[in-house]
Amino acid sequence: MAYPYKKMTEADFDRIRAITAPDRVWVGEQIAHEYYKDEMPEYGVFPPELYVEVLNKEEVSAIMAYAYQENIPVVCRGAGTGLAGGATCKYGGIMLSVMKMNKIFPVDHKNQTVTVEPGALLVDVQAAVSAEGLFYPPDPGERTSSIGGNVITNAGGMKAVRYGLTRDFIRCIEAVMPDGSIMNFSSNVVKNTTGYDIKDLVIGSEGTLCILTQVTLKLLPQPNCSCTLVMPFNSLEECADMVPKVLELSFVPTAIEFLERELIEIVERNLHKNFPVKQGDAVLIVMYDASDQRELDSAVEATSEAALANGAIDCCIADTAERAGSVWAVRANILEGMKADSVSQEECDVVVPRSRIAEYVKAAKKIALSHGICVEPCGHCGDGNIHTEMLRGPEMSDEEWKSAMHASLTELYALSKQLGGQLSGEHGIGNGRQAFLAEFVGPRMIQLYKAIKLAFDDKLILNPGKVIVFDEQ
Amino acid sequence: MAYPYKKMTEADFDRIRAITAPDRVWVGEQIAHEYYKDEMPEYGVFPPELYVEVLNKEEVSAIMAYAYQENIPVVCRGAGTGLAGGATCKYGGIMLSVMKMNKIFPVDHKNQTVTVEPGALLVDVQAAVSAEGLFYPPDPGERTSSIGGNVITNAGGMKAVRYGLTRDFIRCIEAVMPDGSIMNFSSNVVKNTTGYDIKDLVIGSEGTLCILTQVTLKLLPQPNCSCTLVMPFNSLEECADMVPKVLELSFVPTAIEFLERELIEIVERNLHKNFPVKQGDAVLIVMYDASDQRELDSAVEATSEAALANGAIDCCIADTAERAGSVWAVRANILEGMKADSVSQEECDVVVPRSRIAEYVKAAKKIALSHGICVEPCGHCGDGNIHTEMLRGPEMSDEEWKSAMHASLTELYALSKQLGGQLSGEHGIGNGRQAFLAEFVGPRMIQLYKAIKLAFDDKLILNPGKVIVFDEQ
Repeated sequence: MAYPYKKMTEADFDRIRAITAPDRVWVGEQIAHEYYKDEMPEYGVFPPELYVEVLNKEEVSAIMAYAYQENIPVVCRGAGTGLAGGATCKYGGIMLSVMKMNKIFPVDHKNQTVTVEPGALLVDVQAAVSAEGLFYPPDPGERTSSIGGNVITNAGGMKAVRYGLTRDFIRCIEAVMPDGSIMNFSSNVVKNTTGYDIKDLVIGSEGTLCILTQVTLKLLPQPNCSCTLVMPFNSLEECADMVPKVLELSFVPTAIEFLERELIEIVERNLHKNFPVKQGDAVLIVMYDASDQRELDSAVEATSEAALANGAIDCCIADTAERAGSVWAVRANILEGMKADSVSQEECDVVVPRSRIAEYVKAAKKIALSHGICVEPCGHCGDGNIHTEMLRGPEMSDEEWKSAMHASLTELYALSKQLGGQLSGEHGIGNGRQAFLAEFVGPRMIQLYKAIKLAFDDKLILNPGKVIVFDEQ
Repeated sequence: MAYPYKKMTEADFDRIRAITAPDRVWVGEQIAHEYYKDEMPEYGVFPPELYVEVLNKEEVSAIMAYAYQENIPVVCRGAGTGLAGGATCKYGGIMLSVMKMNKIFPVDHKNQTVTVEPGALLVDVQAAVSAEGLFYPPDPGERTSSIGGNVITNAGGMKAVRYGLTRDFIRCIEAVMPDGSIMNFSSNVVKNTTGYDIKDLVIGSEGTLCILTQVTLKLLPQPNCSCTLVMPFNSLEECADMVPKVLELSFVPTAIEFLERELIEIVERNLHKNFPVKQGDAVLIVMYDASDQRELDSAVEATSEAALANGAIDCCIADTAERAGSVWAVRANILEGMKADSVSQEECDVVVPRSRIAEYVKAAKKIALSHGICVEPCGHCGDGNIHTEMLRGPEMSDEEWKSAMHASLTELYALSKQLGGQLSGEHGIGNGRQAFLAEFVGPRMIQLYKAIKLAFDDKLILNPGKVIVFDEQ
């Protein structure tokens, strides 16, 4: 156990400069304030003592070996687009940015993979493989996130219904352990039962177990065509009940999202968008990718029939890029639209069994309202991951908002648990949700998490205070 | 650390009888000898001190709590079809059979899942969900294996190319920890970033971390039609080079297997089978599933064109069940066919990057021959998992066979590593391969595996001596 950590000295700064280069090291007040936080400053603003941009695994290894020896905490940072306060220096120490480690190696066509460094941006990786006729499907909303960040939060996104999560596209990981050891978790193979599956444990571990220095991603052939269907329903329940009907067809949809009318109207009003379907209290949006037009036609035909047979008022087919764009533009701008109606927001991203979505949405609204907060749940109907945006009205004092939000979150997480769900589908625990996590999973699981953390990081120097909290003694 | 373990006494036997029932407990010589080993007696034959058949998680929990307190080793046993000596009582103690925990709960259509107990047989689970119009794709050769065994070895099988491994179909796991705690790893949700991903760590851990008591499996809609293509090539290299060409088409194949002519002839000769394609030194077999006939036709058309453009002598389409059956019967009976030509066999199931398959096969034959052993590699071309069957000729003495086999395996694993592969794709480490594992992954990884084992099982009472080996002191 490593509390209290060493306060860094000039000698420590010099050592890191010697390992890397003086012009890639910033200390104290030289460090830009954007590195004090991620995209949720609500979850903590903490100054690093030193900020360093590394170029390769050898530098990462040397820094970790030194920090391990000297008892200095280290936090790895990617693009900083996290939503749980994960990439922040809660205990000071070193912020190690991998954003200069952003190589995208040539696509390996024979293995249908691409190897990238953790600082490569998702958008750049997608473009690079697309230029080679291939496809990297994981597509969380934030495309300027780094691949490393995607891996350590197991980023999901809308296309998870068909393609799965980031986890499903990670062939292998090269990483540096807290003591500086360079490790390879699996290799460029399709399956592996050689020892424990460390790779999957590291995925989603929010930078608390090791520092990624390279990942190899599985790719797919580009789908040749796609189509979006929009089905308005008279009620949210009917809309949610349609989801299993879509999934039992023999075509696997790429995305299934839902929007309630009041949310559509918020976006239309505040952002001057125009959603093409005007009917229905709730709308189901289903997207299909296909390898050829014949397959796509079959999927669209079968889904339209099923929709009309199951209470859809209509089934609009957005089969051109322009039409589909007008649908997805509204979906993509929900957060922006809601921001215009509120002074600040808090988000809960619980995931529930698909069968419980309507129940969750109804109950979530009631819970928030009982605390004077307006919520607009929306999201990934196909995978039960409901983004429950909580909006702060202009009339609420800081104290009122804080207390109402905490009370609402407590009840929303309990509701998710009661429905067989989980606390977070995508965003993770980071620095904002540890107390909720302990309540959610119970003491025996926390004990197991702690033992696993210690198995990797016996001195607790890597991203300390995130996901799980140890006593500071 | 728990060495030496307690030698069980009459009082211990009575305690287990009291927790369960006297007619479900056998001790000493009462225990059937089949429970001394799995399907590879070469990897160890060990008598349990007590054999118990449990009915529910409460019994498992009570037995583990008692064993934890008394320092008695426990090995969980499913159908005993493992191939790595995993489910054996290396240190005596309790063998806990979950084969009476074999409930298959009703299919959950809304979530497209089924919950089963670990003793349910794969073949029964497949039949139960098929009767409801759904599909559980993982299909390792051994279909009388238990689902629990499938999960803790992350069973693969031929259809992994399209559908993935057992891992990809596990929504959540209920398990008992070595101290008796009952835990739930995830729940019936599609994605989850709530704490560390224990579920995936447990999958493939060969019964060394916890005892499964229930798993929830993801299901898919049944494919409506399928077709098998057989492409003969003049050489193995051309055959292997065709694999990436198949994968870059926009249709994802269900299975891609290869057979060399001499192996086909062995099966034909020894088992009186008739393989329908007579040309070519090596044959690629590609199977497609599809949601409708139009999609299937497109896939078959595109693949046939690609095959003929890339050196295939022919492309035979086995589009009836009977024709496809004659192809797959030869593939399924390779091991049987080879057994007739040898007095015993040893298998190595390395996995290499798909791009290195031909290289591996050529070099593997040379290595084995240099030690006087005949090998016939075959297998899962689509995922690089090559089953390298080593055949013992009648002229070899026990000593010669043992030494030649060990020398061959040492070189085959080194070859796999050199090609960027792994030691085991499917069978695991169990009791037969720990020394090879330590050599393969290196000391730092072994140290990490040990720390993870201890995070779950601090007294080392669960399936001790498997996967990793601790000093017995």
